[in-house]
Amino acid sequence: MNTVAVVGLGLIGGSLARDLAAQGVRVLGYDRDAATLRAALADGALAGALGPELERVEDADALVLAVPVGAARGVLAAVRSRLDDVALITDAGSTKRSVVAAAEALGLGGRFVGAHPLAGDHRSGWAASRTGLFRGARVFLCPAPASSARAHELAHRLWSGVGGQTEWLDAEAHDRLLAWSSHLPQLASTALALALSDARIPARELGPGGRDATRLAGSSPEMWADIALDNAPELAEAVDALASRLADLGGVLRAGDHAAIHARLAAGRTWRSGSTPENA
Amino acid sequence: MNTVAVVGLGLIGGSLARDLAAQGVRVLGYDRDAATLRAALADGALAGALGPELERVEDADALVLAVPVGAARGVLAAVRSRLDDVALITDAGSTKRSVVAAAEALGLGGRFVGAHPLAGDHRSGWAASRTGLFRGARVFLCPAPASSARAHELAHRLWSGVGGQTEWLDAEAHDRLLAWSSHLPQLASTALALALSDARIPARELGPGGRDATRLAGSSPEMWADIALDNAPELAEAVDALASRLADLGGVLRAGDHAAIHARLAAGRTWRSGSTPENA
Repeated sequence: MNTVAVVGLGLIGGSLARDLAAQGVRVLGYDRDAATLRAALADGALAGALGPELERVEDADALVLAVPVGAARGVLAAVRSRLDDVALITDAGSTKRSVVAAAEALGLGGRFVGAHPLAGDHRSGWAASRTGLFRGARVFLCPAPASSARAHELAHRLWSGVGGQTEWLDAEAHDRLLAWSSHLPQLASTALALALSDARIPARELGPGGRDATRLAGSSPEMWADIALDNAPELAEAVDALASRLADLGGVLRAGDHAAIHARLAAGRTWRSGSTPENA
Repeated sequence: MNTVAVVGLGLIGGSLARDLAAQGVRVLGYDRDAATLRAALADGALAGALGPELERVEDADALVLAVPVGAARGVLAAVRSRLDDVALITDAGSTKRSVVAAAEALGLGGRFVGAHPLAGDHRSGWAASRTGLFRGARVFLCPAPASSARAHELAHRLWSGVGGQTEWLDAEAHDRLLAWSSHLPQLASTALALALSDARIPARELGPGGRDATRLAGSSPEMWADIALDNAPELAEAVDALASRLADLGGVLRAGDHAAIHARLAAGRTWRSGSTPENA
């Protein structure tokens, strides 16, 4: 790919633009925040800017939407008529069902492959973007029902080219999994932050463990409000399951049942220990 | 202080023994796990071992209990008769009300100052212990009602000598605060781990944020079962408050209320941002 258009230059879009530019790809970018767009041009991550209606997007071989989940459909609809020569349309959102359906409804399914890189952290915006963000990160690729072998190949090449470990997954299955593995931890962290705030415990009272447990509460509200609502039915069920587990722990505490609390702590540790590459 | 006895050579006791030994203090230690005791002797952290009934504790200027919260009272009672010449008796547990009351009831209040260093993480045991663990860490000091100025001074000297930032706090106030700032994050993390386990989501599915949110679930069940039950009434209240916040989030999701979910995410972020030295 010679030219890639990136719309939204936050943590994900900005980092992708930096990586592609470093590979010699001509990156055309846009962000509704003018200061962000200027900074990305000044840093050399962009070869040029798209216009406010994404003018020049037709010059790109691929379009990457890195906007909040709730904005993706509108952007696609607005530029639909200028995408005829764009070989790959992809995104980077944390939910996949709705964006795949939107692309399909707009007749873009043949060239659309949704993507979700599991990269980044609670930070957001251009200032948090950096090269190498996707190195070794899992990247879920969720094709539209109509998407072509060519689009599959381009999507794989784009994301693995910046170091991602791509995994194909149906959009439906993706959203069900992520409701638990990502969206629930976000709301758990936010709920913990709110409970502590209600109790007038300032965040500086936390030790290292409490700081870990509430770190996600520092995430972007704009981004996460969209994600949570886009995956609301699955996520509400997960939130209920967590609330039930807490109610059970409360009951065990009130009963003063040492064996029961120990068993729950031990089961949590067993689950966690199978954990992660760095066992972190 | 020339000689300090440390009972329990896990993460906290082991690290304290290492730091004191590095300062030239003669450290006598004990752990019910024979392999741990041998390792601590072999590593040079201990000048000698106490006996299984803590024989030789009478040689120490200070006794530090670094055993699970539920075991401290029993240890104190068992060695009560050999503590007449020990100028300071302190501990390192995460709750303070019960241990202060136990010391008082045993007539040790004059020389007892409870301590709680906010150091360490989810890891436990001698293998996790290290020098410098307390450098810059907050250390709560909770005196017994009867404890003397001399005991206060020794406790401050012991814990600040290993780099702790000591803060005096009434045991009651300590336990109320920690129920929220430390014990609730622990159970929140455990509950999240259990909910994910119930849903058959393996820990390796988590991204960096989910790994942060569940890290505390990897803590020692032995240690935390004791802490949770020792602070059960306060902690159950905190657990209920968190469950209520989750129920509220579930309701907002089901209602599809974008403004409400955004407001909650934003409030969580505002609370978190005032945060911590490293804003982490």
